[in-house]
Amino acid sequence: MERIFSPSGCVEQLLRFEAALARAQARAGVIPNDAAATIAAKCDVELFDTAAIIHDAALTGTPVMPLLRQLLAQLPNDARAYVHMGATSQDAGDTALVLQMRDGLDALATDLRGVCAVAAQLAERHRRSVMPGRTFLQHAVPITFGLKAARWLGAVTRQLRTLDSVRRDMLVLQFGGAGGTLAAIAPNGLAVAELLAEELNLTLPDMPWHAERDRPASVACALGVTAGVLGKIATDVVLLSQTEVAEVAEGLTEGKGTSSSMPQKRNPIDAVQAVAASRLAVGIVPVVLVAMAQEHERGAGGWQTEWRAIPDLFRHTSRAAQHVRAALSALDVDAERMRANLGMAGGMLMAESLVVALASSIARPEAQQVVAELTGSAIRNRVSLLDAARADKRVTAVLSSQALEKALDPAAYLGSSDALIDRALKAWRDYGAQAAR
Amino acid sequence: MERIFSPSGCVEQLLRFEAALARAQARAGVIPNDAAATIAAKCDVELFDTAAIIHDAALTGTPVMPLLRQLLAQLPNDARAYVHMGATSQDAGDTALVLQMRDGLDALATDLRGVCAVAAQLAERHRRSVMPGRTFLQHAVPITFGLKAARWLGAVTRQLRTLDSVRRDMLVLQFGGAGGTLAAIAPNGLAVAELLAEELNLTLPDMPWHAERDRPASVACALGVTAGVLGKIATDVVLLSQTEVAEVAEGLTEGKGTSSSMPQKRNPIDAVQAVAASRLAVGIVPVVLVAMAQEHERGAGGWQTEWRAIPDLFRHTSRAAQHVRAALSALDVDAERMRANLGMAGGMLMAESLVVALASSIARPEAQQVVAELTGSAIRNRVSLLDAARADKRVTAVLSSQALEKALDPAAYLGSSDALIDRALKAWRDYGAQAAR
Amino acid sequence: MERIFSPSGCVEQLLRFEAALARAQARAGVIPNDAAATIAAKCDVELFDTAAIIHDAALTGTPVMPLLRQLLAQLPNDARAYVHMGATSQDAGDTALVLQMRDGLDALATDLRGVCAVAAQLAERHRRSVMPGRTFLQHAVPITFGLKAARWLGAVTRQLRTLDSVRRDMLVLQFGGAGGTLAAIAPNGLAVAELLAEELNLTLPDMPWHAERDRPASVACALGVTAGVLGKIATDVVLLSQTEVAEVAEGLTEGKGTSSSMPQKRNPIDAVQAVAASRLAVGIVPVVLVAMAQEHERGAGGWQTEWRAIPDLFRHTSRAAQHVRAALSALDVDAERMRANLGMAGGMLMAESLVVALASSIARPEAQQVVAELTGSAIRNRVSLLDAARADKRVTAVLSSQALEKALDPAAYLGSSDALIDRALKAWRDYGAQAAR
Amino acid sequence: MERIFSPSGCVEQLLRFEAALARAQARAGVIPNDAAATIAAKCDVELFDTAAIIHDAALTGTPVMPLLRQLLAQLPNDARAYVHMGATSQDAGDTALVLQMRDGLDALATDLRGVCAVAAQLAERHRRSVMPGRTFLQHAVPITFGLKAARWLGAVTRQLRTLDSVRRDMLVLQFGGAGGTLAAIAPNGLAVAELLAEELNLTLPDMPWHAERDRPASVACALGVTAGVLGKIATDVVLLSQTEVAEVAEGLTEGKGTSSSMPQKRNPIDAVQAVAASRLAVGIVPVVLVAMAQEHERGAGGWQTEWRAIPDLFRHTSRAAQHVRAALSALDVDAERMRANLGMAGGMLMAESLVVALASSIARPEAQQVVAELTGSAIRNRVSLLDAARADKRVTAVLSSQALEKALDPAAYLGSSDALIDRALKAWRDYGAQAAR
Repeated sequence: MERIFSPSGCVEQLLRFEAALARAQARAGVIPNDAAATIAAKCDVELFDTAAIIHDAALTGTPVMPLLRQLLAQLPNDARAYVHMGATSQDAGDTALVLQMRDGLDALATDLRGVCAVAAQLAERHRRSVMPGRTFLQHAVPITFGLKAARWLGAVTRQLRTLDSVRRDMLVLQFGGAGGTLAAIAPNGLAVAELLAEELNLTLPDMPWHAERDRPASVACALGVTAGVLGKIATDVVLLSQTEVAEVAEGLTEGKGTSSSMPQKRNPIDAVQAVAASRLAVGIVPVVLVAMAQEHERGAGGWQTEWRAIPDLFRHTSRAAQHVRAALSALDVDAERMRANLGMAGGMLMAESLVVALASSIARPEAQQVVAELTGSAIRNRVSLLDAARADKRVTAVLSSQALEKALDPAAYLGSSDALIDRALKAWRDYGAQAAR
Repeated sequence: MERIFSPSGCVEQLLRFEAALARAQARAGVIPNDAAATIAAKCDVELFDTAAIIHDAALTGTPVMPLLRQLLAQLPNDARAYVHMGATSQDAGDTALVLQMRDGLDALATDLRGVCAVAAQLAERHRRSVMPGRTFLQHAVPITFGLKAARWLGAVTRQLRTLDSVRRDMLVLQFGGAGGTLAAIAPNGLAVAELLAEELNLTLPDMPWHAERDRPASVACALGVTAGVLGKIATDVVLLSQTEVAEVAEGLTEGKGTSSSMPQKRNPIDAVQAVAASRLAVGIVPVVLVAMAQEHERGAGGWQTEWRAIPDLFRHTSRAAQHVRAALSALDVDAERMRANLGMAGGMLMAESLVVALASSIARPEAQQVVAELTGSAIRNRVSLLDAARADKRVTAVLSSQALEKALDPAAYLGSSDALIDRALKAWRDYGAQAAR
Repeated sequence: MERIFSPSGCVEQLLRFEAALARAQARAGVIPNDAAATIAAKCDVELFDTAAIIHDAALTGTPVMPLLRQLLAQLPNDARAYVHMGATSQDAGDTALVLQMRDGLDALATDLRGVCAVAAQLAERHRRSVMPGRTFLQHAVPITFGLKAARWLGAVTRQLRTLDSVRRDMLVLQFGGAGGTLAAIAPNGLAVAELLAEELNLTLPDMPWHAERDRPASVACALGVTAGVLGKIATDVVLLSQTEVAEVAEGLTEGKGTSSSMPQKRNPIDAVQAVAASRLAVGIVPVVLVAMAQEHERGAGGWQTEWRAIPDLFRHTSRAAQHVRAALSALDVDAERMRANLGMAGGMLMAESLVVALASSIARPEAQQVVAELTGSAIRNRVSLLDAARADKRVTAVLSSQALEKALDPAAYLGSSDALIDRALKAWRDYGAQAAR
Repeated sequence: MERIFSPSGCVEQLLRFEAALARAQARAGVIPNDAAATIAAKCDVELFDTAAIIHDAALTGTPVMPLLRQLLAQLPNDARAYVHMGATSQDAGDTALVLQMRDGLDALATDLRGVCAVAAQLAERHRRSVMPGRTFLQHAVPITFGLKAARWLGAVTRQLRTLDSVRRDMLVLQFGGAGGTLAAIAPNGLAVAELLAEELNLTLPDMPWHAERDRPASVACALGVTAGVLGKIATDVVLLSQTEVAEVAEGLTEGKGTSSSMPQKRNPIDAVQAVAASRLAVGIVPVVLVAMAQEHERGAGGWQTEWRAIPDLFRHTSRAAQHVRAALSALDVDAERMRANLGMAGGMLMAESLVVALASSIARPEAQQVVAELTGSAIRNRVSLLDAARADKRVTAVLSSQALEKALDPAAYLGSSDALIDRALKAWRDYGAQAAR
């Protein structure tokens, strides 16, 4: 990702645009084949002084002008006339950004597939690892760690699908000339545009979009949502790693997650960095959205904002994905501790299950009332829910000792967890199958 | 939009969830048909004290608990046991929000179609209204007002498509019970879920999504991009309305856009308010994205953030759409002034056209050099580009007086403008056709 | 806060501006005393149709015009001429907002003082309540709950000081007339401005600031930082309330924090709502900052953005403060559980203390190495740090059994905690004293 | 600015902290003087492999651990024990950031003073350059360009004051050890802290602030407001540079602001880049505010977010300041064009002046009515306000031809412009005087 959005990565794609433009115009019969070949041959990033281009861009407001100067200087007189013909600098700049974004989305998808692959393993492997489900960070009812991983898997799979559709729909050629009318190469404008799109393997949009930025903004949003999903997973890892919870730990690597003062520390440092990267990514989305209000036929500020914002957004999202992947790949999962934690707070998280069990014999509202009293007194008296229930005649009147134990067994109160895991795994397999086609 | 996201609008959809849940459970054989009918009959917003529900929500953290209390109070004993069975408050809350968002998207689409309809009219009507194209707010090359309107049309049409796909893909049922396992109604969880989705005409997702918020976040993003597009159109209207430009003006309505101190003022007040609403909308997107990092099985803060943020986002985006629609619907377009403005600054915006004309006789780089010198001297000497060109032998040597005039005629340098307008109109018609199917 | 920023709260302050303007102009000899008295008498919010004003504001873009129409309709002919003289609607609108913000800051300060008062009590009362200090959510070294509360206290006290200075420096009169030149009441402009500022007890700024919005933006930022501080406190409460930590719980109120499905739940619902309100507040800050780029002498969108954004910012921040205050005021602090939690994970949080103890006899890097090995083996073998240390000759060679126990006693490793608590309490007392002066 | 926040700039300040810590501890008698001298001598950035430190930071989550490893490797055994004693990595990291921010604020202030100096010159030089004042981008009443520049000056001067107070109040030492209790060097914690603050010329705060981030957040906000002010100035320059307005132009430099396709273009490229940099800066503020909710005694994500966000914020704000300075420094101001633009739209911007003139003879509401009719008919009939007024008996009845001309002379309707310019210049001089003290 660093390479794709580096200065030389940008120059490379700008040159790819200029080369493709020359070839397309030759194919359209607008410029001589020889000139096109000569131009295309010189559109090689190795021949360019990238640092000088970036430096001059601060003066001209775009890297295209200094790049063209360097390109022209390398061309014979008879080819010079055919460089960048009919195009405006934003045609090159936007298309280059589109090409960078395409590579960027592919790189990101690779990392996200890596996250999915390991989440799918965790979901399968921990189908039976019962743990407390937590709402508002309070024990609620039992779940399995497999289900939690399946939910992560489901969310990332959905982002892969979204990013695929964004890649398909939002990455289109920019080619309109100075005012978006293709006037300088009339009447061949649309013909050249079509061939240029073909050369770059990009879709030809209905119209140039110099000042209508919904497409890059939609890409930015898709990355923002992806970063948000990654942030959620990382947050879960951080919370599960707490000393008091200790259900997972990031695997030890030499030097990783240690402390300058406390030798015992084992910080969830990949997850923590993923949280940070996620927030940095998310923070860029509104910058791109605000920049959409671009004036007339080309923005005076908004476009320049995107230039810096979008590469940063790809970088941050990519780092978030890599840190989440690293955190999950080497995750130590302590199923024993999960089981132990279920017993915390007197096993109160089985209260709902007890209500359900009672409700087969007594009216549901009454059952709820009984259990509410039981949990209240159990908390006050610091006894377990089981002990409190055993001592309550309203319970023992309708539930045998065995039935009561079953009602308070977390492993017996997992509902559709297994089926839900299957559904998430199937969605991931379906995605993989479809993507491989 | 105000009504949809009002407190009573929220209560109405919560009740719709509870009624549908009862019916679905009856159909699944989980609860008696009679009980379901009794419950559904009482799920009528008119029977509820909305203000009390909202007031108590601050205490309980959700309106669902106080709503259930009011509902239970209205039910006979034998139906009470079957209310909200197997559901958790977030099931009701999220599904209600989804239903509100569905109505909200429909209402927004109506306004956006209105924007498209008037933009399409402007595009058609002003195909020949030549005006300066402006980049960096500087005259660049000529365009037509029809083309500008067509670009607006294209951008809004794309948002309509995006919102349609968001409506289809992102609005799904929430139903998972306390921990997302459907344990309280095992083994009927998924069966009830399927029927419940059917009752509400919602898609059944692979899994509950209490703490995976990519779907509402994607809706928020789609609205943010839409608000951004509307902000762009409003910005153009504000800029075109400037005293010095005066190419459009918002139509006069009694009292509209006047000033407390300056009787001559005719402020583009709808456009200005659209700009403000657009920014307010965009500002909410990151709030929703940040809120995605929800803890474990239910968030402690993020979910509550969405509750307020998403309704505000719909309200602001809706206001932006309505103000843009109002601004465009009554827009006074001054094609004469557009034509006059083309002559500003000595007609310098025809410089590129002159290069193209010269380049048919002399080498393109040389032509560019000639025109750069001409524009420079014309600006210095405060003469028009035509006068400067007429006095330059390099020009007159290759261009006849007639050819020169043609080269400097804005109406003759519009490139593919007409074809681009057609493409935008076709996309809008195609959308309408598809949407009507 | 709701009242201050309600429509009628706004109208009230607009009328206060108009009344003060009339009085100031009378004092400056610009208008007759009688007219001023008549005008001022009618500037009573009870006499106005607030709903109509707000409705018409959507048309005119500001509530000032419809308000003036209602005011004029109530005045005799001879007073009418002197209403709003020399002022522009933004003079009234901005000054009204300044007055609302002044009241808003006062209301917010009251809530923040409430937070401080209870945090100070907690700091004092829990000086000796030893608990785990946590970094990266991992046990680090012992602290006291008093120190944690003192840090909360310190942060909120600092915000009170900042808000005081913002109130003093940023809330200034707006009065400049249509273009900020005071031309319509020349040559009395500055004289009237000075008297008007006096009437409203506001500072007279060097210049009108219609399009220079650094002052409202600074107020917004101060609220954003305050909301951030409140969010930090609320986050701590949520985390300490976790079932596995259980060191605090929000006090029970009828119906508060309960669940629709789980009778045992005791959710930290005030803290959760404070987290949400904090994020909503913070999300508005960039909206106000983006809106600063206001065009020329009056903005076309930015000013209108502020109008809605700033009231919302006050509302959200106020709610955050009230929820934090409520959460802390009724906080159940379980010092016993804190003590118990210190022993979690084998008392590993005393590792640094053991290094310090060993370092008085052996070289520090060596001591760190020894303790790193001890914690490693203790974790692997699931024994306590004390047991591991007792079995290590390198330790027993230099530390007696008593010295070792002391080195592993959390209560003996609190460093400057007491002095730091004192410093926070002193800062709070100093603030209170200064504020009372 | 790039250097201050470069990796080596960071390492340099981290080493400065470690050296100062050793010296402070020697002065406090906690470590031997010789050891301190040896450590301090090795704390030289030239001796460190910065790239390796930054690379390893991704693994450890902070650059402090790898830096310490390199430092220890360079020290003799007897000094090693005294490195980083009692400190935690965040003590070093935060203090280094504070030192970077101090340098960053100084560098920014230099640029802002440059902006002020040139704005003050423009204010003085263009006291009499009458131009249209514009509200909602519509001509309102006349102002002078000097007044506009004075408003820019006033706003930037205020930011200089704010940044000074931020520098004084918000940049404080971080020193608390692993849990913020200074336990590892008890009982000398506060004594060492005081000397350490002295060594680094920083204020000693009441308490460590590892997880209370109001101070860095306040710095971020101050930069955000400054960026907002710069964005406003840049927006004005862009708008005044429009082809139709043409009242200013950015000075020509070789290659600057030219176009790849249009030889006549003279884009306001510094202003445009300032707009972009301003928005990028502003976009970071909420990221820092959101990151304030840091957990317990040290954040798990928020602190890491700041690390990247704050340097980026300084970079963007600095670029905004430099571009605004460049734009203003070489600004071509066309006072003649300003005067000409006053006549645009029939001189309607004198309407308010005419009301004032009439109101000395007829009742003000009546005068307003007359002028409203006049402007309406003038616009409809495309005549000037002067011509319309001359033909209206209600006007001629009370205003002589000379009085009418005066009432419609923009140069005679500038109100307190001159006095306001003086006030802004005085504030700037006062600031300079105070700052020089």
